[in-house]
Amino acid sequence: YSVAVLAGDGIGPEVMAAAEQVLDAVSSKFGFTLTRHHHAIGGAAIDQFGKALPDQTLAACESADAILFGSVGGPKWEHLPANEQPERASLLPLRKHFGLFCNLRPAQLLPALSAASPLRADISAQGFDILCVRELTGGIYFGEKGRSGEGAEESAFDTQTYSRKEIERIARFAFEAAKLRNNHVTSVDKANVLASSVLWREVVTEVSKDYPEVSLDYIYVDNAAMQLVKQPSQFDVLLCDNLFGDILSDECAMITGSMGLLPSASLNQSGFGMYEPAGGSAPDIAGKGVANPIAQILSAALMLRYSLGQDEAARSIEKAVAEAVEAGVGTPDIYPNAGYTTQDVAAAIVAR
Amino acid sequence: YSVAVLAGDGIGPEVMAAAEQVLDAVSSKFGFTLTRHHHAIGGAAIDQFGKALPDQTLAACESADAILFGSVGGPKWEHLPANEQPERASLLPLRKHFGLFCNLRPAQLLPALSAASPLRADISAQGFDILCVRELTGGIYFGEKGRSGEGAEESAFDTQTYSRKEIERIARFAFEAAKLRNNHVTSVDKANVLASSVLWREVVTEVSKDYPEVSLDYIYVDNAAMQLVKQPSQFDVLLCDNLFGDILSDECAMITGSMGLLPSASLNQSGFGMYEPAGGSAPDIAGKGVANPIAQILSAALMLRYSLGQDEAARSIEKAVAEAVEAGVGTPDIYPNAGYTTQDVAAAIVAR
Ligand SMILES: CC(C)[C@H](C(=O)O)[C@@H](O)C(=O)O
Ligand SMILES: CC(C)[C@H](C(=O)O)[C@@H](O)C(=O)O
Repeated sequence: YSVAVLAGDGIGPEVMAAAEQVLDAVSSKFGFTLTRHHHAIGGAAIDQFGKALPDQTLAACESADAILFGSVGGPKWEHLPANEQPERASLLPLRKHFGLFCNLRPAQLLPALSAASPLRADISAQGFDILCVRELTGGIYFGEKGRSGEGAEESAFDTQTYSRKEIERIARFAFEAAKLRNNHVTSVDKANVLASSVLWREVVTEVSKDYPEVSLDYIYVDNAAMQLVKQPSQFDVLLCDNLFGDILSDECAMITGSMGLLPSASLNQSGFGMYEPAGGSAPDIAGKGVANPIAQILSAALMLRYSLGQDEAARSIEKAVAEAVEAGVGTPDIYPNAGYTTQDVAAAIVAR
Repeated sequence: YSVAVLAGDGIGPEVMAAAEQVLDAVSSKFGFTLTRHHHAIGGAAIDQFGKALPDQTLAACESADAILFGSVGGPKWEHLPANEQPERASLLPLRKHFGLFCNLRPAQLLPALSAASPLRADISAQGFDILCVRELTGGIYFGEKGRSGEGAEESAFDTQTYSRKEIERIARFAFEAAKLRNNHVTSVDKANVLASSVLWREVVTEVSKDYPEVSLDYIYVDNAAMQLVKQPSQFDVLLCDNLFGDILSDECAMITGSMGLLPSASLNQSGFGMYEPAGGSAPDIAGKGVANPIAQILSAALMLRYSLGQDEAARSIEKAVAEAVEAGVGTPDIYPNAGYTTQDVAAAIVAR
């Protein structure tokens, strides 16, 4: 296999190094070869090549089987106009270029870490295991947008568009995922206000007929933002459009209290995908050797599963991670007083 | 003064009766006359007149100084198409008709009730006091929307538009409010993706120059959804567009854990306004005499302040409410074992 490795900024390179050690371990254990090609992305690419997603990086991704992405951005590039900033200017074109319409963001509260959740003890004690399925290449992110008029009359607009086809393919993904989990899809919309949400709800309802074993309900996005805080255990698969998924998947991640553990996958129709931690580049702790590598390591596991067809290797990584965490091995974000470094955690996972 | 009273469905009539007792008490104490005219709204109006906002209700609101709104909706009307449902079909046209562009939703964690917050004890112990200022007559709620094409190609769209003028007037409201509070505005947007957010940020920045004593920062909506759970005490005034304000104001309300206490105001340029509880019609507890009347009572207080110029009367209500709650008087949603009814709470507040 050939993987494009885009480590990026902040803690990206450190946690990527950890994930690469784990990839080396599983490839020798399971007997496959995985070649990694490193390329510039984000702020580092702006500094070196003048843009967040250089042409040669994009070309390298095209000839790879998958992209393993670290994280991008930091104070150094915050003065740039919003749409040239590292995150936006690397993630959005990659998603669009490769048609990565399906974003999977699992958010699970591990019993060992329930005290880290910002939710009240009796709520976090119930645990939760949510898979946020976010549409990633449509909606208001990619619709027509612009500016017109002058003075006080000047205005700006954005358009949210969804077609049946776009809704159907992401909905199928959500139902398929639910079948492997707890057979429950909650579709998020604002159908009392948005025409695109009315269509969304219609199409999701139609798709659900092919999955009689999966129960479906609908929730308005404002209510979803509340219920996630009040009783997250009520959710299994949360199916969201691009904008609502942006907001709610981050809220899901935050309520686990251990963002440094959460991977994500962005897939297209043909199994190509980009894999990245849910958290950001955390410039405040970069270079200190304390960044949590687990989100990056679990992202590598998702890559093995979804793009490289190495499910067994993926599962062995996930198992090793769970064991290490249960054994109390973790960076200060999850175990403040245990004294483990990024490298210690990587080594513990490799050993397992 | 003349007030249009739209009690609506579910617990609406019960909590409205409580608020009316309080209005009677303050009007005699402070020596003003307040005439109340009751009209049908929401599901009750659909049953009686075939639409959620009947013409005669609208006409009555036009000739009033303010609208005191209860709550609308319930299972009985859930089979209706999304855009004929009681909430949507009464609230949106009222907002638009009267140009109620400014929605104020305070969310405060009272020390006496911090245990009710769904947030972890050490987070809720810090308390918070957030005023969500939401733009209410623009954005994706009221932009062009529609549907086109056929079969798999069928698509639906919504448009978010904001003009400088619209952004400026709501931003001024937020800064004025901040001056009377903690001099801090956090403006919410998605300027890394939306053209309307880029304009939003520009205009807010310009308006802020007239308020050198108020500090301003910006936050992306996804991050805001996270920070509200992680550390709500960092916020003072949250300035949001219509859609983001819908989502975040509900999240703010939920993290207090006492939604039944939260009022809201929706104002236009000339001081006319609509006042309503933040929570819904709660059909499950309607008619049981246990609905919390405080949100409705505090909504009446906001009405006295913003539309009727009776600030002293408003403050006396707020003080009486705070005293009653501190004294342990409250319905089961806040004091599960105290045994107080809606009417007990109303009486306790009237007495104070
Ligand atoms: C950087 C930004 C454009 C991006 C998004 O909104 O999709 C990010 O928030 C994410 O969720 O991956
Ligand atoms: C009923 C609905 C249209 C409304 C909104 O989204 O504005 C409600 O959620 C609210 O926040 O008042």
